Amino acid sequence: MTDQQAQLVTTTQAARDLIAATVAEAIADGKPNPTVGLVPTMGALHDGHGALFEQARAENDVVIASIFVNPLQFDRDEDFENYPSTLNADLELVTRYGGDIVFAPDTQHMYPGYPDAPQIRVSAGEMGRMFEGASRPGHFDGVCTVVAKLWNILIPPAPAQFRSYFGQKDAQQLAIVTRMARDLNTDVAIRAVDLVRAPSGLALSSRNVRLDDHGMENALGLSKALHYLADQAAAGVPLDIAAARDIIRAQENVELDYLEIVDPATLASLTPQQLATPLASEALALVAAWVPPVRLIDNMLLAP
Amino acid sequence: MTDQQAQLVTTTQAARDLIAATVAEAIADGKPNPTVGLVPTMGALHDGHGALFEQARAENDVVIASIFVNPLQFDRDEDFENYPSTLNADLELVTRYGGDIVFAPDTQHMYPGYPDAPQIRVSAGEMGRMFEGASRPGHFDGVCTVVAKLWNILIPPAPAQFRSYFGQKDAQQLAIVTRMARDLNTDVAIRAVDLVRAPSGLALSSRNVRLDDHGMENALGLSKALHYLADQAAAGVPLDIAAARDIIRAQENVELDYLEIVDPATLASLTPQQLATPLASEALALVAAWVPPVRLIDNMLLAP
Repeated sequence: MTDQQAQLVTTTQAARDLIAATVAEAIADGKPNPTVGLVPTMGALHDGHGALFEQARAENDVVIASIFVNPLQFDRDEDFENYPSTLNADLELVTRYGGDIVFAPDTQHMYPGYPDAPQIRVSAGEMGRMFEGASRPGHFDGVCTVVAKLWNILIPPAPAQFRSYFGQKDAQQLAIVTRMARDLNTDVAIRAVDLVRAPSGLALSSRNVRLDDHGMENALGLSKALHYLADQAAAGVPLDIAAARDIIRAQENVELDYLEIVDPATLASLTPQQLATPLASEALALVAAWVPPVRLIDNMLLAP
Repeated sequence: MTDQQAQLVTTTQAARDLIAATVAEAIADGKPNPTVGLVPTMGALHDGHGALFEQARAENDVVIASIFVNPLQFDRDEDFENYPSTLNADLELVTRYGGDIVFAPDTQHMYPGYPDAPQIRVSAGEMGRMFEGASRPGHFDGVCTVVAKLWNILIPPAPAQFRSYFGQKDAQQLAIVTRMARDLNTDVAIRAVDLVRAPSGLALSSRNVRLDDHGMENALGLSKALHYLADQAAAGVPLDIAAARDIIRAQENVELDYLEIVDPATLASLTPQQLATPLASEALALVAAWVPPVRLIDNMLLAP
């Protein structure tokens, strides 16, 4: 399933037919239980998306990319309307990374009657209102709604296994879609793709190019604070979240938004009691800070 | 697939395995594209559920009943806790109507961690807040969430076709789940099962037994008003909704809650402008009224 142009489909029926045919072909090629990996994207693809495609390609017989600029997850209509559309370049990039199928529907195909549709939506609930959701009301509801739709459209027929890929960089999104698959019983396995760090420790982000040398230096406080907590977790000592926050606050020209240690399954913050003893189970440290002129997020899983 | 005891499964994995095996068996029996019909219920089954099972049995190779008392759709915890549980009798009834599979999970299997789960839910939006939803906040969100879960668990593997059965009596629920399948792209066909009327015109309901002879008589105003509108629609004349309401108000001891004519796809009420001309497309007349000691609902599709 490599070395050929990724096939483009733009409708639900065409996508289902092509996926069924591709799965049947894989079975005929001697793979009795083919695996299908989906990388949901909003297009405007660049090599920053590469890790998602590389992992999906390495782990699956069939790789699907979806390209859909989802109006429901934008905070402002203007941002949605100005979002770049680069389908031809996106198709080339998916092909270069070995993707097999690109599903790129338009707004009216996904939401017939938009903006009066969809009437029925998925709600991320409290998990969607905390952290990044606090300043972006409805954003994670929009993410859940479009991901639920994409899963229902692109889930391959049995005996194929379905996996959906999300970056660990957007840890809250990853936690929410993982929870959605569980809460709504979708027959999909969520695969997290590790975030990539520069040798300095800074988490890679398309926003980093807007940082000057001072900003780059100051931004290191985020990853330092996370490593500090991960080291404490690994050492089996209680986590000193106040000291971790101080690491960030000690940086010049950095405004800490939040640094919290949460349950990855619910995003609920660990209580002072839980923080006072060594970790009992895996936790997630989430951080966001303004490093002018950009807002950066980072996170790290803390193993007990 | 008849003349044998319906098979009981209580877990998601057992249900998926049994459905896959049953579909494979149907294919081996010479049905290359088997159809699978789901009748979602809350148990406590009686012959009032018969029409649902009869239609599902007549239209499908495999009939599944789900039995799950969904805590999310109750207005009061007390009603949920007091809801009757009659699994053995339910199994017998499903068997008597020719059902093949009964999926009856418990609360913690459907919502592991309940009441702290599910975190991610389906929201019926505005369609769930009008009419019956106005006095039952969250009810239709609970219906959507459990139906989305049941569909994701019980949807058969291709090439089987999936249908899900709902009574036309609960017209708002039918409109909402129909809309959900469309808005979330679930690969399921919704089948409406006609409501059953007594020879008098009264829509059958388990509540009718609480009406005395006077109540029975007075309750006829609901179906009379609906027939009045259906006759106008059939005659191609504008609908006189005020006159229809007057038919109900003319009954002794009846308190009209609402009588509205709506778009079946959105439940939006037709505007006075739309009502002033003959119907352009199918509409739905919804009525609810108190006929002491019960509250009755009824509805009728109005063909243009």
